[in-house]
Amino acid sequence: MKMLINVPETVVADALRGIAAAHPELTVDVENRVVVRRDAPVTDKVGLISGGGSGHEPLHAGFVGPGMLDAACPGEVFTSPVPDQMARAAAAVDAGKGVLFIVKNYTGDVMNFDMAMELAEDEGVQVAKVLVNDDVAVTDSLYTAGRRGTGATLFVEKLAGAAAQEGAPLERVEAVARQVNEASRSFGVALSACSTPAKGSPTFDLPAGELELGIGIHGEPGRERRAMMTSREIADFAVDAVLEDLKPTMPVLLLVNGMGATPLLELYGFNAEVHRVLAERKVPVARSLVGNYVTSLDMAGCSVTLCQADEELLRLWDAPVGTPALRWGM
Amino acid sequence: MKMLINVPETVVADALRGIAAAHPELTVDVENRVVVRRDAPVTDKVGLISGGGSGHEPLHAGFVGPGMLDAACPGEVFTSPVPDQMARAAAAVDAGKGVLFIVKNYTGDVMNFDMAMELAEDEGVQVAKVLVNDDVAVTDSLYTAGRRGTGATLFVEKLAGAAAQEGAPLERVEAVARQVNEASRSFGVALSACSTPAKGSPTFDLPAGELELGIGIHGEPGRERRAMMTSREIADFAVDAVLEDLKPTMPVLLLVNGMGATPLLELYGFNAEVHRVLAERKVPVARSLVGNYVTSLDMAGCSVTLCQADEELLRLWDAPVGTPALRWGM
Repeated sequence: MKMLINVPETVVADALRGIAAAHPELTVDVENRVVVRRDAPVTDKVGLISGGGSGHEPLHAGFVGPGMLDAACPGEVFTSPVPDQMARAAAAVDAGKGVLFIVKNYTGDVMNFDMAMELAEDEGVQVAKVLVNDDVAVTDSLYTAGRRGTGATLFVEKLAGAAAQEGAPLERVEAVARQVNEASRSFGVALSACSTPAKGSPTFDLPAGELELGIGIHGEPGRERRAMMTSREIADFAVDAVLEDLKPTMPVLLLVNGMGATPLLELYGFNAEVHRVLAERKVPVARSLVGNYVTSLDMAGCSVTLCQADEELLRLWDAPVGTPALRWGM
Repeated sequence: MKMLINVPETVVADALRGIAAAHPELTVDVENRVVVRRDAPVTDKVGLISGGGSGHEPLHAGFVGPGMLDAACPGEVFTSPVPDQMARAAAAVDAGKGVLFIVKNYTGDVMNFDMAMELAEDEGVQVAKVLVNDDVAVTDSLYTAGRRGTGATLFVEKLAGAAAQEGAPLERVEAVARQVNEASRSFGVALSACSTPAKGSPTFDLPAGELELGIGIHGEPGRERRAMMTSREIADFAVDAVLEDLKPTMPVLLLVNGMGATPLLELYGFNAEVHRVLAERKVPVARSLVGNYVTSLDMAGCSVTLCQADEELLRLWDAPVGTPALRWGM
């Protein structure tokens, strides 16, 4: 597998140098792997920190900025960041109002964010933590006890980020994050495997003519493999898998997410089918986002995330945000 | 090649339905294939219209909105739109101040935009036209007499769009577009071929272990094939190819563009190398944009576009823009 890289060992550091060059509004500590809002700590604001293995860009560094994250901690590709990264981030963004850790539910991430929590608390920083575990495909996956955290991470970071930006106290920001996670469900589909720089070849075998339903964002196995399906059939399957679990009683935020290598032309066509199924199931879509946001390197495929949103969550969604990957109102 | 589609025949229409569902701020005429700002025609504003074959998303429909295009006309995949589309778009966006056609230099596009110009003028619309031909890789390519139009299209649409948004007259908007094209150069590299829905398999053969230097955005042949190079080597080659032709005497706008399937992690690493070369060549970078903007379906690879920008162009770059794919200040 050909890659646009120097050597596998420097992929994350190289990307961080590139982020620094493109985004002067961020402070990038390449050596310690922490990306922070340049104006942090922001007075009278709870600090939001997330992180995880690299390879899911723009998640998380692309979501650092006013109205969303204060800091992101990228690990090696598909590998948890180390506790010291999150402790450094906490020290950098805490304005005395505490920080919230947003953690995708993978065993390594959970363990390392927990250790970082202790380190930060030892330094006098008040820390709360919210787990994201929205993926309905399977429980107890390759790197996870319980459900995996995937697309809902974007909703949690945006909506809790908006609450924090408004000056809400830590308990309130944490409560919003928890509400958003509980109101969100995702389901992903792979048309091809992804290749990590270290391995240099696909991380699993997906035969020509087959797709994997319920794929994880590191290529973890899903529910089943089937002969290739149409966009219409995939939308039916993915949306129904989500709705079987979520049963929304109010309008939803919809994320139609690309895994990385699926052309936007196809992703928009898939979005049309997702809207069709949701209309058939009588689920009103309040807001719709289409693009590559929570990716899996060069995997072809897509995921659907729904978040049922009351008026307050809709208001937080519409609030201004200014990050490399998500921006409106500023 | 597996694709997230229903059938090849409906790919463009399906995508347009998906764009309509995701972006209520746009009016999408699926049957006639015209995407228009919902508030068009905008009083006292020149209308900007572009278009071209589909498969390069978000170009052009993703650039429709305040501060950029008023309308986009998508053709079939890698196929020029027909004159009637641009004539309809002209009628929809003309506020009596005239319209500007922004045309990438491909034989079919040039011919069909010229015919549309006649149709629109017959209806009493004043039309000006600017060709984009920024690709330094080759002259007289597979679908082109002269140089191909690629990444600079984004700069032309953004900067002329900002001038139009401010209320500039048609001659001024046209002059800005012409200046931007003349000040811009691009060079692209393919690590893999792309597959069109109609063909269902790669449109050309690129052996494992080789890359193509100077690729076109439809997979047209470039300058040469070589054994796979590092990100550093590719940046040296691409930037030098551009600088050999451009010789900038002022700071540049930089677009580091992904061809579609290259992970953002890799693209940011490449951006670091591009900034390094430009620093070595003593070319200051005034603004930097990294992402998948002018794509070639599922091709892996990248392109570099430079536009030398005086104070006025920088001011127009920083002006607010509100489109699906490019948004700031609104």
